[in-house]
Amino acid sequence: MIASIDPFHAIAISREAHRLEAEGRSILHMEFGQPSTGAPAASIAVAHHVLDTDPMGYWESQPLKGRIARHYRDAYGLTIDPERILLTCGASPGLVLALTSLFAPGARVATARPGYVAYRNTLKALYLEPLEIACGPAERYQISADALSALDPAPDGLILASPANPTGTIIPAQELARIAATCAARGIAIISDEIYHGLSFGDPARSMLEFAPDAIIVNSFSKYFSMAGWRLGWIVVPPSLIDAARARMGNLFLTPPVLAQQAGLQAFEETTELDGHVATYRRNRQLLLDALPALGLASIAPPDGAFYLYADISHLTDDSLAFCHRLLQDTGVATAPGIDFDPVEGHHFIRFSFAVSTDRVQDAITRMVPWFQAQHSHKAL
Amino acid sequence: MIASIDPFHAIAISREAHRLEAEGRSILHMEFGQPSTGAPAASIAVAHHVLDTDPMGYWESQPLKGRIARHYRDAYGLTIDPERILLTCGASPGLVLALTSLFAPGARVATARPGYVAYRNTLKALYLEPLEIACGPAERYQISADALSALDPAPDGLILASPANPTGTIIPAQELARIAATCAARGIAIISDEIYHGLSFGDPARSMLEFAPDAIIVNSFSKYFSMAGWRLGWIVVPPSLIDAARARMGNLFLTPPVLAQQAGLQAFEETTELDGHVATYRRNRQLLLDALPALGLASIAPPDGAFYLYADISHLTDDSLAFCHRLLQDTGVATAPGIDFDPVEGHHFIRFSFAVSTDRVQDAITRMVPWFQAQHSHKAL
Repeated sequence: MIASIDPFHAIAISREAHRLEAEGRSILHMEFGQPSTGAPAASIAVAHHVLDTDPMGYWESQPLKGRIARHYRDAYGLTIDPERILLTCGASPGLVLALTSLFAPGARVATARPGYVAYRNTLKALYLEPLEIACGPAERYQISADALSALDPAPDGLILASPANPTGTIIPAQELARIAATCAARGIAIISDEIYHGLSFGDPARSMLEFAPDAIIVNSFSKYFSMAGWRLGWIVVPPSLIDAARARMGNLFLTPPVLAQQAGLQAFEETTELDGHVATYRRNRQLLLDALPALGLASIAPPDGAFYLYADISHLTDDSLAFCHRLLQDTGVATAPGIDFDPVEGHHFIRFSFAVSTDRVQDAITRMVPWFQAQHSHKAL
Repeated sequence: MIASIDPFHAIAISREAHRLEAEGRSILHMEFGQPSTGAPAASIAVAHHVLDTDPMGYWESQPLKGRIARHYRDAYGLTIDPERILLTCGASPGLVLALTSLFAPGARVATARPGYVAYRNTLKALYLEPLEIACGPAERYQISADALSALDPAPDGLILASPANPTGTIIPAQELARIAATCAARGIAIISDEIYHGLSFGDPARSMLEFAPDAIIVNSFSKYFSMAGWRLGWIVVPPSLIDAARARMGNLFLTPPVLAQQAGLQAFEETTELDGHVATYRRNRQLLLDALPALGLASIAPPDGAFYLYADISHLTDDSLAFCHRLLQDTGVATAPGIDFDPVEGHHFIRFSFAVSTDRVQDAITRMVPWFQAQHSHKAL
C-alpha cells in the first residue's frame, strides 16, 4: 500500500481565491508563504546576461557554493568547506535529500506540531514515521530539549525550524544549545530548516550548525532572497554524509536551474534591496499586531521572524477550513487554515502570511475588522 | 542502514576533462547526454520578457499542461486530460514522483541492463528492488515481452526507455503492444521514460500510452527541446493516481521554475529550430557509424534515436573506466564508461554522446582513429 498523504488545504483556498479574482473580485493573497516581490534587480540583470550568453546545460555552480560557505562565516562565524554544500531545486527537494541521506524506512523523526505540512507528508511519503510533538503557546509552539528528553525511546531524527512556519517563533540560542546536547547524548540526527533566516524582527536567528556541527541544514532562495519561483536552495551536510548526499542529488534530482544559480550568486550582494523587504514585513507585522484587539484575536505567539501570524480562533470556530472559505468569500482575504499545520489543534487556528505590500495588509485589516466583529456577535447570539 | 548507491563514473571523467581544459588542453565533451545547443531563440526571448514583468512566485502553468496535452494528440493521436499532467523540475524528480506514487518499499521493479544509471540508483535510494534484465545485442539491448513473461514471480513494476540510454535503440510498436499486454495480464505497473522522444532517425518513437493507457510517462525539456539546465519535465499519470501524485509533487518538490515553464511553452512552437538539431545528430550518427571500421569497433546496436552510440570494446579492455580515462588523457575525447549503465557487462563497453556540433564529432573521429588503432596493435603484441 502506498502512503496516504493529506492534501495542502491552502491550495484549495488559493484556487478559490483565483477563481473569484477571475470573476472580478478584489483578492488579498495572504494564503501562501511567498514574497510578492521579485528577485533583486541586479540578479535579474545577471539572468538577462546569462540567457544571452550561456546554452545552459546541466551545471552546478562552484562559485555559488563558495559564496554560501562565506555566508556561514559572515552570518554565524562558521567555517564550512564548500564541498559540504549541495545545491538543490529549492528547500523541498533539499529536505528529501536530507531525509534520504540520513534515514531508511521505519525511522522515527520528531517534528513540532504545529509545523510545516510538508514535514509530516514528506516523512510519510518516504515511509519514515513522523513523531509530532504537541507545542502550545507556553512553548511558543516550538520543540524544547525537555520535550525531546521525554521521548522514550529516543527518535532517530528531529526536524527543527527556527523561525518556524506557521508561527514565526525563533528558538533562543540557549535552547538550541540544549537541544543539540540532548540530540548528541541520545543519538538523534538533526535536520534544521533555516529557510526563514534573514527574516527576523529582533535578534537574528542562530544556525543550528553553531551548536550541532553534524546537523544537516536546509535553506533556500525563496524567502529572504525573494526568489521562490526560481527554484533554488541548498543543504549543508556533515563530511561523513557528503558521498551519500551527492549520490542522491545526482540520481534523484541531477542539478538545479542554471539561471537561478547565477542570479542567486548575485543576490548575496543585494542585501540593501532585500533588507528593504524585511522592513516592509516588520511594518506589516506591527500593523497586524496592533489590529489584533479590533479583530478580537487575543492568543497568538508574536512572530520573531518569517512573515506569518498564527492566531487562535477557537472562540469563533472549530472548523478552520470552512472559516477560511467564509473569510475569503465575504472579504476577499485569502488565508491558510490551521489544519494544514496541525491536524489535531489546527481546527481552531488560522495563518496570515504578511509577505505582501503594507497597503495590502492595511486593506486586509480594514476588510477583516468588521467581519471578525460580526463573527463575534454571531457567536454571542 | 541507508541504501548504498554507486557513483556516476562519467562525472569523474567530466571533472578530469574540465581539469585538463583548464590546463589549456582541447577537450571534446562526449561524456554527458546533453545538447551543446541552447533553448530556442524564441524561448529565450520569452524568458527575457518574463524576467522583466513577473515577480515569479510558486507557480504551475495551466497553459503548459494544456499544450503538453495537445502534443499527445498531435504526436500520438491520444486524448489526455491536462489534469493528468504534472510539471516537474526535470525527468529525474519526475521519476521519483512516479515511483513514490506507485510503489512502497520492497516493491520489485524491472529495468533493462544496460540502462540509465539513475533507474537502478533511484530505485535503491527509495528502497525499491531493481530487477535488472540482461539485454544483449540479440535483443538490441531492450526488454521484451518474452523476458517479462519469464520473470517468476512477476515484478511489481517496469521501467522502459525507448529510445534508450545508453544505446538509442527503439522498441517497435508491435513489441510495445506485447509488453503492454503482458504487463496488463501480470499486473505489472509501467513507467515509460520517453525523454528521448523527438530524437529519432527512422520512424518516430511511439508512446507507451498508445498501448498501456494506465502507464506513467516521464518526459522532459532537456533533450529534444535543448533546455537541460532550465530544469523542466513532466509526467502523465492515470486518473486513479492524480491525487497521490499531486500530493507528492506539492510536498516533495513544490513547483518547477517559472522561467522554464514560460520558455518551455514557447519551445513547442519552435520545431523548425529544434528539428535542425536533430538533423545535426543524424549527421553525427552517420559519421560515427561510418568511422566504426577504422576504429575497429564492430559490435554496436545502430541507434534508432537519442544521441548515443554504445560500443563493445571487449577486444580492447575489460576495464571501461580506465579505458575512458586513457582515451581522455591521450586524445582529449571525454566519453562515458559502460559500467555506469551495466554493472555486469559494462566493463567492456563505452558510450559516445554525439549531441555536439558535427565539427566536433569529426574532430573526435580524427583524434580517435589512430589511438584506437594503436590500442589494437598494443593488444596484438
